[in-house]
Amino acid sequence: MSLDLVKEFVEKNKEQYLETLFTLLRQKSISTQNIGMEETSAMLLNMLEEIGMDSRLIETQGHPVVYGEIKNEANDFTLLIYGHYDVQPADPVEEWNSPPFEPTIRDGKIFCRGAGDNKGQLMAQILALKTYQEVVGDLPINIKFVFEGEEEVGSPNLVNFVSEHRDLLKADLVYTSDGPMHESGAPFVLLGVRGMLYVELNAKGADWDNHSGNKGNIAPNPAWQLVELLGTMKDDAGNILIEGFYDDVKKPTANEEELITTLPYDAKQVADQIGYKGFNMTREEYYRKLTLEPTLNIAGFHSGYGGKGSKTIIPSTAMVKMDMRLVVDQDPDDIFEKFKKHVHKHAPGVEVVRYGSMKPSRTSPDMEVVQVVKEAVKEAYEENPVLQPSLGGSLPDYVWTQILGVPSVIVPYANSDEANHSPNENLDVDKFFKGIVCTCSVIRAFGE
Amino acid sequence: MSLDLVKEFVEKNKEQYLETLFTLLRQKSISTQNIGMEETSAMLLNMLEEIGMDSRLIETQGHPVVYGEIKNEANDFTLLIYGHYDVQPADPVEEWNSPPFEPTIRDGKIFCRGAGDNKGQLMAQILALKTYQEVVGDLPINIKFVFEGEEEVGSPNLVNFVSEHRDLLKADLVYTSDGPMHESGAPFVLLGVRGMLYVELNAKGADWDNHSGNKGNIAPNPAWQLVELLGTMKDDAGNILIEGFYDDVKKPTANEEELITTLPYDAKQVADQIGYKGFNMTREEYYRKLTLEPTLNIAGFHSGYGGKGSKTIIPSTAMVKMDMRLVVDQDPDDIFEKFKKHVHKHAPGVEVVRYGSMKPSRTSPDMEVVQVVKEAVKEAYEENPVLQPSLGGSLPDYVWTQILGVPSVIVPYANSDEANHSPNENLDVDKFFKGIVCTCSVIRAFGE
Repeated sequence: MSLDLVKEFVEKNKEQYLETLFTLLRQKSISTQNIGMEETSAMLLNMLEEIGMDSRLIETQGHPVVYGEIKNEANDFTLLIYGHYDVQPADPVEEWNSPPFEPTIRDGKIFCRGAGDNKGQLMAQILALKTYQEVVGDLPINIKFVFEGEEEVGSPNLVNFVSEHRDLLKADLVYTSDGPMHESGAPFVLLGVRGMLYVELNAKGADWDNHSGNKGNIAPNPAWQLVELLGTMKDDAGNILIEGFYDDVKKPTANEEELITTLPYDAKQVADQIGYKGFNMTREEYYRKLTLEPTLNIAGFHSGYGGKGSKTIIPSTAMVKMDMRLVVDQDPDDIFEKFKKHVHKHAPGVEVVRYGSMKPSRTSPDMEVVQVVKEAVKEAYEENPVLQPSLGGSLPDYVWTQILGVPSVIVPYANSDEANHSPNENLDVDKFFKGIVCTCSVIRAFGE
Repeated sequence: MSLDLVKEFVEKNKEQYLETLFTLLRQKSISTQNIGMEETSAMLLNMLEEIGMDSRLIETQGHPVVYGEIKNEANDFTLLIYGHYDVQPADPVEEWNSPPFEPTIRDGKIFCRGAGDNKGQLMAQILALKTYQEVVGDLPINIKFVFEGEEEVGSPNLVNFVSEHRDLLKADLVYTSDGPMHESGAPFVLLGVRGMLYVELNAKGADWDNHSGNKGNIAPNPAWQLVELLGTMKDDAGNILIEGFYDDVKKPTANEEELITTLPYDAKQVADQIGYKGFNMTREEYYRKLTLEPTLNIAGFHSGYGGKGSKTIIPSTAMVKMDMRLVVDQDPDDIFEKFKKHVHKHAPGVEVVRYGSMKPSRTSPDMEVVQVVKEAVKEAYEENPVLQPSLGGSLPDYVWTQILGVPSVIVPYANSDEANHSPNENLDVDKFFKGIVCTCSVIRAFGE
């Protein structure tokens, strides 16, 4: 089969494929606020049934997994495709140029919450199966779909799900399309991810806000307490001072050190994509910080008055949200204990709340399946993919490599400026169709 | 004239006096949001005219001053009574037990924004004039009322107002009832105030929020920048590290040092009033920190996600609101320059916005007018007032002592747990009536 037939078929069906995607995008599915999750999983189930998959919803302790499979008796190679149907909240809503849940095409991009992360990429997988079947007929390999509904809250039930369904999920390779392509526009083949740990700090002062004059120097100030606590967590050079934080960070191999000096890089492009003119890292610094080093990020800090003008109070509460991106072999459970110990040592009364977490993961570039994917991606995009040891972001990749025991690759289909998790999230229309072609190419490669 | 006649008259007119106050309380007057200011000044003007004052609104660059006077040809002593008709915003509104602008009596207290700060106390002055005239007839001295509408935003136009109306405002003593009475329940005669300087810090990272994974360690984090900046402003012991901050702090006199060791003090009472069980200062520490030392307060810190659950972003902006309480002879202009210099040194890109400010002020306890007030207050409350060198809070007292050149005393009429600037602000019903009696007592004392 020639990929050109696939490309032609996609070209002819563009309008219908976009409409199918838009239907999914319009359906809200904000997992952290439990909005529209049931409706979305039901909608997806229907879509899988329509393309002839043996499908069902599998309940978890949280939102259900949408599962589907198509068997091929002649070939026992199984490709498990993972994606997620939940999205981030849309706020700050006022910064969107079009309604966040109404897909709108401008400048060749689909603007909508979830367009890139992950509904557009997930839909490319579904439509690839439809396309392949329409163009060629039966699929040449076994395909399994696992679409979860809790990735944006840290996939708290995916470990249990995979542990409990080892037989059902048996596969030769796990294939994920999530996150953005390389800044240069080249396709990515990512061999791992950073892990993640999300925490919240709550400091309590007095039982109510006090007057900053009549009680100034007298009532405790929890905002100052958290500022001082955060000040103990990093040194001036940005090194994280939580005791033992770096203990399990694997020293990069010579190959990895070598690799990051050869990856394509354009500082100006990165500056444009993060929206920060002051950006000026070297290639090596950039890739090291993004793929080989952990982070300690303040995702939110809220205390006291934030309105117009002035209000003279001593706030009674202060709250900080933080996420840490972890690298192999840091373990979120271990890091959480160390983090908590640090907080209790420096600010005994401060409450530490744990939200989602995820282990880091890596697959070896020497495996044959990795080489097959690399070639198939190259053929689809007609361009050499960038092979990178890890994504900066987090995906529950370790459930495949560590719990299911299957190698895993991540091949993102979204443009690098997709603005996922931000206002005006978008997906290049063209990238959406390229993704469909890429999945067809991978299926074909493993079928040969 | 016996004060008993005054007390009797007030007792008989309680219901009507409360209704007059409630009318004023229901009328919103949030200066920082420019809500209801015109309506409130017009309402007050009517009230002054009803008690026979020669009244008018005097325009300023901001909200107008409500001015009124009653002359007595037989006595040339003039008492200028200052108050303010503006209030703080009501948020967080959800923490109020009754609507913030609907006065509600519970447990002998009037709950309403502005009940204590300052509408209840201001209304006691108006009703004292009415009462005195009804009970005795003509007032024995000259009375001038200056009610401004910008105290809660730092009285930015009061200096100009006083400078431009020196002749109109000529007086022998300025008398202010604002702030809470002493924690012990005893009346206060305060001989000064702390000054104030309110600033806002704005830090800017990238042009939009970035994904904390895909851009983690790469995009700048303005929340971290402000945390680090704030960390340079105080040492572990709470000393303020802004260069030159303490340069102009007057060393307390031996008398002041002596005074603060003799003032009534109950740590448990203070703990209850600020709503903080952990409070455990000594008497000397408490009065020193509250009246003789400056503060550096975080009134608000807002950046990034503050909703339910987790959102993994690198915020693009961070904002901190701070107020400093200043003691004699710190000057807000000078302190602002020092503050700005500190910010520019440690965090060059951070914007510093200046809001209101106020100079500190003190009047000597040796003046005869102070002794007259002290005796009159004692007679009204049948209890020795606490004479304190300074209020913890700020009032534009320096415009009287430094610009008009007139001594000034502050005699608060609100209960010490009035929760001014906080949810559930309140005024003891009983304290409201006592305030009316107290002003009558002071008028009588100067008329003799």
